[in-house]
Amino acid sequence: MKITSQELYQKLIEDEKITTVQGKMSFSLGSVNMVVKQHDVVGNIMQEWLKNWMFEKGIEFAENDNLQMPPDFYLNPDDKTENLLEVKAFYCGRGPGFDIAGFTPFLKELINKPYVLNTDYLIFSYDVDGNGNVIIKDLWLKKIWNITRRSKNFALNFQVKANVIHKIRPGIWYRGDFNSQKYKEFECPEDFISAVNYAALNDSATQQLSNGWIGRFVNSYKDHYGVRLNIPQWQEIQEKYDLSDQHEYNKTVKVIEKLTHRKANESEKLEKNNDKLNKMNTDTKTRQQLESTISKRERCIEEYNRQLTVLTEKVNALKVKLDRWN
Amino acid sequence: MKITSQELYQKLIEDEKITTVQGKMSFSLGSVNMVVKQHDVVGNIMQEWLKNWMFEKGIEFAENDNLQMPPDFYLNPDDKTENLLEVKAFYCGRGPGFDIAGFTPFLKELINKPYVLNTDYLIFSYDVDGNGNVIIKDLWLKKIWNITRRSKNFALNFQVKANVIHKIRPGIWYRGDFNSQKYKEFECPEDFISAVNYAALNDSATQQLSNGWIGRFVNSYKDHYGVRLNIPQWQEIQEKYDLSDQHEYNKTVKVIEKLTHRKANESEKLEKNNDKLNKMNTDTKTRQQLESTISKRERCIEEYNRQLTVLTEKVNALKVKLDRWN
Repeated sequence: MKITSQELYQKLIEDEKITTVQGKMSFSLGSVNMVVKQHDVVGNIMQEWLKNWMFEKGIEFAENDNLQMPPDFYLNPDDKTENLLEVKAFYCGRGPGFDIAGFTPFLKELINKPYVLNTDYLIFSYDVDGNGNVIIKDLWLKKIWNITRRSKNFALNFQVKANVIHKIRPGIWYRGDFNSQKYKEFECPEDFISAVNYAALNDSATQQLSNGWIGRFVNSYKDHYGVRLNIPQWQEIQEKYDLSDQHEYNKTVKVIEKLTHRKANESEKLEKNNDKLNKMNTDTKTRQQLESTISKRERCIEEYNRQLTVLTEKVNALKVKLDRWN
Repeated sequence: MKITSQELYQKLIEDEKITTVQGKMSFSLGSVNMVVKQHDVVGNIMQEWLKNWMFEKGIEFAENDNLQMPPDFYLNPDDKTENLLEVKAFYCGRGPGFDIAGFTPFLKELINKPYVLNTDYLIFSYDVDGNGNVIIKDLWLKKIWNITRRSKNFALNFQVKANVIHKIRPGIWYRGDFNSQKYKEFECPEDFISAVNYAALNDSATQQLSNGWIGRFVNSYKDHYGVRLNIPQWQEIQEKYDLSDQHEYNKTVKVIEKLTHRKANESEKLEKNNDKLNKMNTDTKTRQQLESTISKRERCIEEYNRQLTVLTEKVNALKVKLDRWN
């Protein structure tokens, strides 16, 4: 039976109910028969598990001879240009730290096989409890641009060792509010390719390869799909993926809310003080004290108004900046 | 029960008969119940296996909180300066590629805890057959200097990425004849420390740390063991670990054996020819032919003698060089 990546994903979620089942790994050798509790190990075998699962379910597939490059599986063994499936797994306690591909071979692969760009990433997040029970916490089917992002120093998030670029690494695509992330994942293949090109041009190891790379890729992609991708300049889009304006906007909105709340409180108290004053005898010591309190409250509200004006201007300016990308 | 590393090794070999048993790793999740055939995985869990084994056998141990540094286990939980045990495992089809330690932390550790030098390395070599059967092919108990060696560019065998030193890596200590190895493992802790010191002095990342390192280590070791180690200069011993003279010696000895054998063959034939000549009539055509053959054989033997003289001189000179280290 031939199925697409999307159908396979649905089957795992709905038929297999993969996010509700509980698994176990065991190892027996000599006099020891044990449950394996090490979580590193599970990540290594989910690909083997999926292979067994597809086999049992009668799903057709072919494996990739090149173990270093995506995909792991071809779901259409008769046409290895479509329904490419890459399997990844990570321990939920640590976040996705898997390698996507070595940068140089990936650049070459995209030119020779532009359809590799559309590989589907089937990603398992798993937990292993204290008794060694393996639980699939989450399962995603993603394109490469959905799980990758820029970093501080590079247009892509790389594994960097001693200033040398090694592998492309994923971002954390599943934190919906992005609150703790500085950069967000790419929105479309065009922006991803723009980042790939910019990173290649700016790394000494890939400089030669990057010469004319973008043109060759776009042509190769057009030859295959009949569509000419319109790749933007990285400089024009890089700010879109920098979440610092968004974070600043969110933070400022929260401060405005807080100040507005305090101002309302203060205004309420002022009103009560004024009521009390109106009902009071003239020229007592208590009256003098109350007048002083009222004056303080009025100055406080003035200060809140001043701050709120500044912050509202700031928030409006940030909104204009952010709206560029919408 | 408290036992030493050596006793633990004996117990594994003799009581557990570890090199004869057969193991299996299995993983069940959802509708799949499978035997894990991936050999990477076994290496990761032999430490966990040993922990379970020690627990079952009632052997006392404590674990190291620092997962990055040797040892994995303290076999004497009351005195963490003796019977330190590090567990390593590698797939026999690929040879030992495990990391021993990061170089910089290792340098620091040796000064603070000089007894780490005497950590025992319990090393499993395993095979996984096509059916997923795990077999322990070999088990060693080694000191760090027994499993490490120099390399072409460094005094130690390092994992080097983009010219930067990362981890200390083992040599292949178990090929008895060294025929395919260019460098041999260290013979004693002093030579190993000499190499560590030289490597530290010659790497930019450790240069500051290497300043006075050897003195601090020797003092620290003396404080702990009451023995002052006599560390040789690396320049004085590095040739001892270069096997190229030894390889040249072995090769030349083999050529001498071959030529000696051929010369003996030729001499035997010459003797027969001479016998035949003595019994022959004078001045026949056959006699002339035989005389010509005899003359050829004599010249051939002369040439063998000339070559053997040259090679014997070479072999003697190499022997003198090699004998320096014995």
